[in-house]
Amino acid sequence: MTLILALDFGGTKLAAAITQLGSRQWLRYERCLSPTGATAKTDLEIMRSLIYNLLQGETPSAIGVSFGGPVDFTTGTVRLSHHVLGWENIPLKHLLEQEFGVPTSVDNDANVAALGEHRFGAGQGYDSLFYVTISTGVGGGWILNGKPWRGNAGMAGEIGHIVVNPAGPVCLCGKRGCVERLASGPYMAQDAKEYLLKPANHFSGKQLRSLVNDNLDLITGKMISDAAAQGDELAINILQNGAWALGVGIGNVANLINPQRFILGGSVTKAGELWWQEVQKTARETALPEIDFEILPAALGDDAPLWGAVALAELGLI
Amino acid sequence: MTLILALDFGGTKLAAAITQLGSRQWLRYERCLSPTGATAKTDLEIMRSLIYNLLQGETPSAIGVSFGGPVDFTTGTVRLSHHVLGWENIPLKHLLEQEFGVPTSVDNDANVAALGEHRFGAGQGYDSLFYVTISTGVGGGWILNGKPWRGNAGMAGEIGHIVVNPAGPVCLCGKRGCVERLASGPYMAQDAKEYLLKPANHFSGKQLRSLVNDNLDLITGKMISDAAAQGDELAINILQNGAWALGVGIGNVANLINPQRFILGGSVTKAGELWWQEVQKTARETALPEIDFEILPAALGDDAPLWGAVALAELGLI
Repeated sequence: MTLILALDFGGTKLAAAITQLGSRQWLRYERCLSPTGATAKTDLEIMRSLIYNLLQGETPSAIGVSFGGPVDFTTGTVRLSHHVLGWENIPLKHLLEQEFGVPTSVDNDANVAALGEHRFGAGQGYDSLFYVTISTGVGGGWILNGKPWRGNAGMAGEIGHIVVNPAGPVCLCGKRGCVERLASGPYMAQDAKEYLLKPANHFSGKQLRSLVNDNLDLITGKMISDAAAQGDELAINILQNGAWALGVGIGNVANLINPQRFILGGSVTKAGELWWQEVQKTARETALPEIDFEILPAALGDDAPLWGAVALAELGLI
Repeated sequence: MTLILALDFGGTKLAAAITQLGSRQWLRYERCLSPTGATAKTDLEIMRSLIYNLLQGETPSAIGVSFGGPVDFTTGTVRLSHHVLGWENIPLKHLLEQEFGVPTSVDNDANVAALGEHRFGAGQGYDSLFYVTISTGVGGGWILNGKPWRGNAGMAGEIGHIVVNPAGPVCLCGKRGCVERLASGPYMAQDAKEYLLKPANHFSGKQLRSLVNDNLDLITGKMISDAAAQGDELAINILQNGAWALGVGIGNVANLINPQRFILGGSVTKAGELWWQEVQKTARETALPEIDFEILPAALGDDAPLWGAVALAELGLI
């Protein structure tokens, strides 16, 4: 029996599962939240215990790993995590290969999720597709000729940091008007809060205020969608602006890369029809008329990184 | 002797040359301007006479063709020309294969020039590069793993129509603030003219006006660079804005595609140091700090499409 071990270092959660080569069902599955104050060391310790629980004395034939942060795929070294301390230059592939003695492949979560959707989800049968996750950040993964395309230094697909409005607000990366700065959940929440803190406002944000009992620090990306669904005009405005930014980004990617399909995943994609319509409309307007593409929701949900890790491990076995 | 025939349908000029497989020198070379009122029919007739002059009774082993307009590479059918009438849906590959009985490959000029620079020019030894031509239009050609990447429908690489300033002026394509709308020669000339036609101006455009004896209709892209070199502030402003737009476009491409090298060709790249510095600076600021790339001038000059056509024909022979 050829076993594949799939690991997901997700930043706020850790998950691991095993499956048989070619199967679409998990044999065993473990998941837990990262503790408060987690470090690379505690993450690795927790993951080791999940793995030994899963394996029950058996040996996998290959390991695939999804990591929530930039990874040097060639060496399998994590560059850093934006969520957990101590991940700078950790040779994750090397550590796992030493401990378990089997070929291990490590890649960042957007690339892995893209591969998962390609092999098992909304991208099946399409050999050129672009996956975008819109959540705490905006990341992209790109499948070309059936395999992840990582670019010269593993940095391809960074749709989150293409500039769509040079007059827009400043992003963490230092530039103005990046897709991530306008479309990610936390930044939409921040924009709502800053707007409501200003003395005189056009929009009252009534529904949004009531969701957080007027404690503006509690506003989240999800509340923006919830308030928008209740008709809150400020929330609608911010949500549409985020969807517009993502749509311009997708249209520009269509012009440059011309993939067959875009697949969107991540929490913000659950924001509802208004958001989806604006993304579709803006992407279509931004792309040249000769360029065909479809934009679809991801099919694998929260298990996308694990299924992607399975696909990654299988590629390593071929 | 294995002969390669290279053809260049350039819009305003026609050129053809033959070389031996593996050689870097032309055996024979023919070039002429398209007549005023040229059509697809006259272009094809002139090209046929150039070809028969070149061949002198010999038979080539393969034909490579660079066409100045969108081409369906798979079928070798020209979609249209923006410069010459009557090119809609002309099966150029089929016509040439019927007449000369040898394998023929046809692609658009940016893809072909990219391939030429990759094989024989500034991109030698780099298997992932992005070529940009900045001239009457702005086009892109993209080499991935040593071969042109054309995207799902041959539309990849359209850097000219990615939006860099959504509040900018309207482009021919219908969108606002495309790279081409801000960075191409004719559009820079148009912006200068429109500025000088306004009643009250901050910049006098003195040097630019004197280059055309106050006949604003005569302003060209080249004159913008010439006037800028003479210190004309309006010209400097427009040139810098064009270079900025191209720099944002290149930085965005770096974020998405992460190629090793960008190679810039076309008449606007002769605009001087000011232009190059602004392009380099803006591209560097727009790309994420982790992303490495270089931006270099094209090496093959006016013969890039012909040498690219040789490379294209050779790929067809392999």
